[in-house]
Amino acid sequence: MKILVIGASGTIGKQIVSALTDKHEIIQANYNSGDVKIDISDTTSIQSMFDTVGMVDAIVCATGEVAFNVFSELSRDEWDLGINSRLMGQVNLSQIGNQYLNDGGSITLTSGIIADYPIAYGTSAATLNGAIEHFVKAVAVELPKSIRINVVSPTVVTESLDIYGDYFPGFNSISAKDVAQYYLRSVLGVETGQVFKAFAGN
Amino acid sequence: MKILVIGASGTIGKQIVSALTDKHEIIQANYNSGDVKIDISDTTSIQSMFDTVGMVDAIVCATGEVAFNVFSELSRDEWDLGINSRLMGQVNLSQIGNQYLNDGGSITLTSGIIADYPIAYGTSAATLNGAIEHFVKAVAVELPKSIRINVVSPTVVTESLDIYGDYFPGFNSISAKDVAQYYLRSVLGVETGQVFKAFAGN
Repeated sequence: MKILVIGASGTIGKQIVSALTDKHEIIQANYNSGDVKIDISDTTSIQSMFDTVGMVDAIVCATGEVAFNVFSELSRDEWDLGINSRLMGQVNLSQIGNQYLNDGGSITLTSGIIADYPIAYGTSAATLNGAIEHFVKAVAVELPKSIRINVVSPTVVTESLDIYGDYFPGFNSISAKDVAQYYLRSVLGVETGQVFKAFAGN
Repeated sequence: MKILVIGASGTIGKQIVSALTDKHEIIQANYNSGDVKIDISDTTSIQSMFDTVGMVDAIVCATGEVAFNVFSELSRDEWDLGINSRLMGQVNLSQIGNQYLNDGGSITLTSGIIADYPIAYGTSAATLNGAIEHFVKAVAVELPKSIRINVVSPTVVTESLDIYGDYFPGFNSISAKDVAQYYLRSVLGVETGQVFKAFAGN
């Protein structure tokens, strides 16, 4: 299977690549490195990536920016960061990308636990993670060529606790390797329109 | 109680006003009519409305535009219609409006059943209705002055079946009068961070 992993150099992306690389051909895409460069907030960049990569069997997106701030101070520019990346970046990737998927291919996007459980500074992330989860459920019935689409919603990743742990007080973390398994389930399994919640007990 | 109803001239808005008017002071806001005019997609217009209206005890938003199209043809302009109205219109109304709410006041927003159940042409509506539901759940913990916030998600309204019925094949409709009760529950009750699903059996 030819699998395009966007955000392949990230904490989770690296584990997705590691788990798939033995049996599949992986194309690694990142903002600044990899086999092909990509800025998901820019549709021209998305199109350019697919012009280079051509047809694939699976698209995995393990990236997407969003701003964190208290609600009273969240500016439209901060909202737009997430609207253009986490939300419309992944929407546009799905809209353009499904044309470059072989029959029966799949798209796997990323949201996050903040969609379900509020944290300080997390209102924009909650909103846009929720948006992408509802997008996936809705668009699943409409994609052509038996293409499947799912989204993985990780809790805070163990490897990132040094940086983000204080924002998730008392939340159980998950290792990036364990998160990667949910992406594999989406890519190699048969489910569609699902939100894979990579957390429990929160 | 002094209650600001935005979209007061709409099918649902009229029933909200009708149900509250005997015991409360209602300020009716619409795009083109009412006690005060408002374009929720324009933050200047939102600010101008509150400059006119002053402090209130409850804000009800029963309006919010979104585009309908097949996913493959949904343009960024069509996405932006809903992003600027259904999503950010209601977000900005909440951000500016909470400053004009008395202690213990409430904000009641509107999403729709498409967040939960896909219909043809409904991907953008599903995404942005879902977004506003997750927004409400997240921001509820952060609003000052014991302000509550909820969102009402109606199924197709019986009075609109002539126009929208074909888009909701086999969906049970609800009368606008019955939908209005969910808004009353939000305004006059004690709940917060809730999605009131004005539908059943779908």
